[in-house]
Amino acid sequence: MTEKTEQTDDVAKLAKLIEGQKVAMLVTEDDTGALRARPMWTQQVQFDGRLWFFTSDDSGKVHEVEGGKHVNVSYVDAQHDRYLSISGRAVLVKDKQKAEQLWNPLYKAWFPEGLNDPKLALLRIDVEK
Amino acid sequence: MTEKTEQTDDVAKLAKLIEGQKVAMLVTEDDTGALRARPMWTQQVQFDGRLWFFTSDDSGKVHEVEGGKHVNVSYVDAQHDRYLSISGRAVLVKDKQKAEQLWNPLYKAWFPEGLNDPKLALLRIDVEK
Repeated sequence: MTEKTEQTDDVAKLAKLIEGQKVAMLVTEDDTGALRARPMWTQQVQFDGRLWFFTSDDSGKVHEVEGGKHVNVSYVDAQHDRYLSISGRAVLVKDKQKAEQLWNPLYKAWFPEGLNDPKLALLRIDVEK
Repeated sequence: MTEKTEQTDDVAKLAKLIEGQKVAMLVTEDDTGALRARPMWTQQVQFDGRLWFFTSDDSGKVHEVEGGKHVNVSYVDAQHDRYLSISGRAVLVKDKQKAEQLWNPLYKAWFPEGLNDPKLALLRIDVEK
């Protein structure tokens, strides 16, 4: 089996585990080195090795991931005793086309102006482990 | 209100939130800087500003917390839409008396020799935020 095939298998396995999981805990490191967790809504799109979250570009977590810092994304499904840990790096993305693709009217609760909200940004997590 | 009173209030509030939560996700930083999460059983004892977990003293996470490194402990209660993030520092403790106090026969699944297991240790999390 080639390395590429293995990687594809891993992505497929992870995609299956994430499926149906709405809320992830995103852990970032702040300036003092403290680790902080925040609940985040996972975008239910075809998982291809990257995770996407909507965020406000002036929020604390954005400052904490600048420069592609390490983050952890975890999913807890206590009912089925399933726990998933994803190590990766976060990148802030301002891409209107991508935002349109991922947009859900429910997000108006956080961004009343919708896709035109000047603070609307995406947090892309490049999965490493 | 004095600082001490505020602190006591915070501990009481946190104790109430943790109550009944069995599994926490513990996030530690490995040698490469990657953040990793692991499910851990929370000890159901009176919360006094410290969290306790049983661990094996040769497990990876123990290596990752040496020297009182920063960790994050999070609790997810998706059913009630409650998410809790605790920033703190972890310390490995080998204290048989404390272990006896926290022991539950269910832990034999991980430590077949029980309290006499030579690898049995406690991870104490000193809560900072």
